[in-house]
Amino acid sequence: MVKQNNNIGIVETRYYTFAYPPSELELESGEKFGPITLAYETYGKLNSEKSNAILILHALTGDAHAAGLHPDDKDPGWWDNMIGPGKAFDTHQYFVICSNVLGGCKGSTGPSSINPLSGKPYGLQFPVITIKDMVNAQRHLIDDLGIDKLLAVAGGSMGGMQALQWVASYPDKVRSVIPVATTANHSSQQIAFNEVGRQAIMADPNWNEGDYYGRELPAKGLSVARMVGHITYMSDVSMGEKFGRKFKNTKQLLKFSPEFEVEGYLQYRGDNFIKRFDPNSYLYITKAIDYFDLANGKGLREVFRGIESPFLVIAFKSDWLYPAYQSQEIAKACKLAGIEAIYCELNSNYGHDAFLIEVEEQSHLIKYFLRKVTKGYRVADASNS
Amino acid sequence: MVKQNNNIGIVETRYYTFAYPPSELELESGEKFGPITLAYETYGKLNSEKSNAILILHALTGDAHAAGLHPDDKDPGWWDNMIGPGKAFDTHQYFVICSNVLGGCKGSTGPSSINPLSGKPYGLQFPVITIKDMVNAQRHLIDDLGIDKLLAVAGGSMGGMQALQWVASYPDKVRSVIPVATTANHSSQQIAFNEVGRQAIMADPNWNEGDYYGRELPAKGLSVARMVGHITYMSDVSMGEKFGRKFKNTKQLLKFSPEFEVEGYLQYRGDNFIKRFDPNSYLYITKAIDYFDLANGKGLREVFRGIESPFLVIAFKSDWLYPAYQSQEIAKACKLAGIEAIYCELNSNYGHDAFLIEVEEQSHLIKYFLRKVTKGYRVADASNS
Repeated sequence: MVKQNNNIGIVETRYYTFAYPPSELELESGEKFGPITLAYETYGKLNSEKSNAILILHALTGDAHAAGLHPDDKDPGWWDNMIGPGKAFDTHQYFVICSNVLGGCKGSTGPSSINPLSGKPYGLQFPVITIKDMVNAQRHLIDDLGIDKLLAVAGGSMGGMQALQWVASYPDKVRSVIPVATTANHSSQQIAFNEVGRQAIMADPNWNEGDYYGRELPAKGLSVARMVGHITYMSDVSMGEKFGRKFKNTKQLLKFSPEFEVEGYLQYRGDNFIKRFDPNSYLYITKAIDYFDLANGKGLREVFRGIESPFLVIAFKSDWLYPAYQSQEIAKACKLAGIEAIYCELNSNYGHDAFLIEVEEQSHLIKYFLRKVTKGYRVADASNS
Repeated sequence: MVKQNNNIGIVETRYYTFAYPPSELELESGEKFGPITLAYETYGKLNSEKSNAILILHALTGDAHAAGLHPDDKDPGWWDNMIGPGKAFDTHQYFVICSNVLGGCKGSTGPSSINPLSGKPYGLQFPVITIKDMVNAQRHLIDDLGIDKLLAVAGGSMGGMQALQWVASYPDKVRSVIPVATTANHSSQQIAFNEVGRQAIMADPNWNEGDYYGRELPAKGLSVARMVGHITYMSDVSMGEKFGRKFKNTKQLLKFSPEFEVEGYLQYRGDNFIKRFDPNSYLYITKAIDYFDLANGKGLREVFRGIESPFLVIAFKSDWLYPAYQSQEIAKACKLAGIEAIYCELNSNYGHDAFLIEVEEQSHLIKYFLRKVTKGYRVADASNS
């Protein structure tokens, strides 16, 4: 059932596998790993100067399908309200790229992929990965597309971490940075929530040390992980407005089966997640997020020193998973490092989910910012002006 | 190993079983249930007028052992820093009572108790209970102790809910109310966190529909439930101060074994919980908490109308599990109903745990409040002045 309000139309996922050589990526751990396939989609057209490419980076459970529709889609891509003709990331003007991260389960190489050495899924043989490794893998894709410099790197949540890592690793390849609802390092509480999810998965006997492919899946464990995730994505206010203390209309059939609407919602969300997400990917990606600490003992301003790309940093007031103070730290470090940075804290009751929901103000901010970047935001960036 | 700073000394848990008749309690569900045993402790001496009794009410995982030491205790009771000679609840002046709730697993009748009809633990044959049922059971104990009117009912978290229910159900039996870090109704987000804990327990195959007594316990499920609980008891700041992003000193032995200190802490807390708490009690008690809605569609001021007992309402700024706005609603409803109410929001970084940790200011507030109540806080309460 194709929705009519989708503006990009039918899109296609493509696959890029690192050519030999290099067949391998040197991971942050020192381990060499390959071959690596990245699933990706593109929207809009790359101009002849190849100067209008924007890399969109997805969150924990996102994928390459950021916008438009696949032929069998009920709903469009996860950021379709932000990507398309006339939208924040205007596909009339920009060439938009989104790839599934290394470690993912939506077409990119991850723990559920076949290990060519064994002919079986990697499972826990898959190496530990970091946000930097994800970015380094994307770098190969961008190179392959012939893009020397991205007009912008942009994403919310873990997508924002990748955007920050992109500019820190490749300052010359990024003309501007849009980190949304994110952080430069994962806090103790953020690690703790991820750890609960991991423990829930690993507590499920079907997890079987990660070796469950072709057998019964650790569906209950993943469901609990997803439930706790969903609580952190919403806010006290948005949950209250959506569910309050309302009871479901259906009678409780068994003791402790869901009877409040919020219970039913969480269970539905949890139970459905197994259909689209690999539990091992959940372990690996949450761990990559927990490792994320861009400054890593240095001051963030030191990491940012020498970067000339302007930042648009967006946070949401009710986001308690990635609270605004973490975005403020990013903006502050930019300013201390002499980087042009716009910080904007948007009013929203939607909590962390706001970055997927609050379209209007985000769109205005991003459109205006990208227009300035395109025209040559900084005197220092004279080659682009 | 007895600590020297304990002021009450050795205490003893006693047990009260409802005499026949009445052998049964009519539960809020309409079901009749009995016999019921309540484990309880008392500290200090009941005066000859029986006017100095204070009922302390415990939180989700608390018990009757609020203060002092059992002969084999390493640590004193859970609110020992607040109960004792010269402390907030001064055992030189007051007769302090604390009982394990109905549905609990520390000596009171709960799902792990033997069902006299079957000779086996109740498990899920145990009836659904509510905060009101807990209070009604306590009422029998208080009657049995010959106490016509409690000087105060006091407790934090679920203990505060019981305190509110006490004064709502038995306004003539309560001279004052001290609800701490609590709410008059459980919000959608609060229900959601409890539901994650329940789902984690029930996802554990060892849970076996509640029939695990004498078999392997659903330890992993209960551990995950406890972990998510612990995150909600602390604050972003207190977790950051305690753990930050520090790594454990020990090497990670297996992929995804704890390596951050916060992970190790949560796992330790989770794993230990099974030694002292019954998973079915966790289900029943969290459900009782989720059902709690004192106003139940009416305005809270209507519920409070006619109550003459003064309230001391205490909240903590960093408590995001029971945020201060919920305590403000209690205090506001008191004032709208013409009840004397003191509302105090204490600065603390400890989150919800603050009610167990922030002794000094809480003690001053409570001491002063109890002194006023003892002397006859209200003109209306002339019989006690």
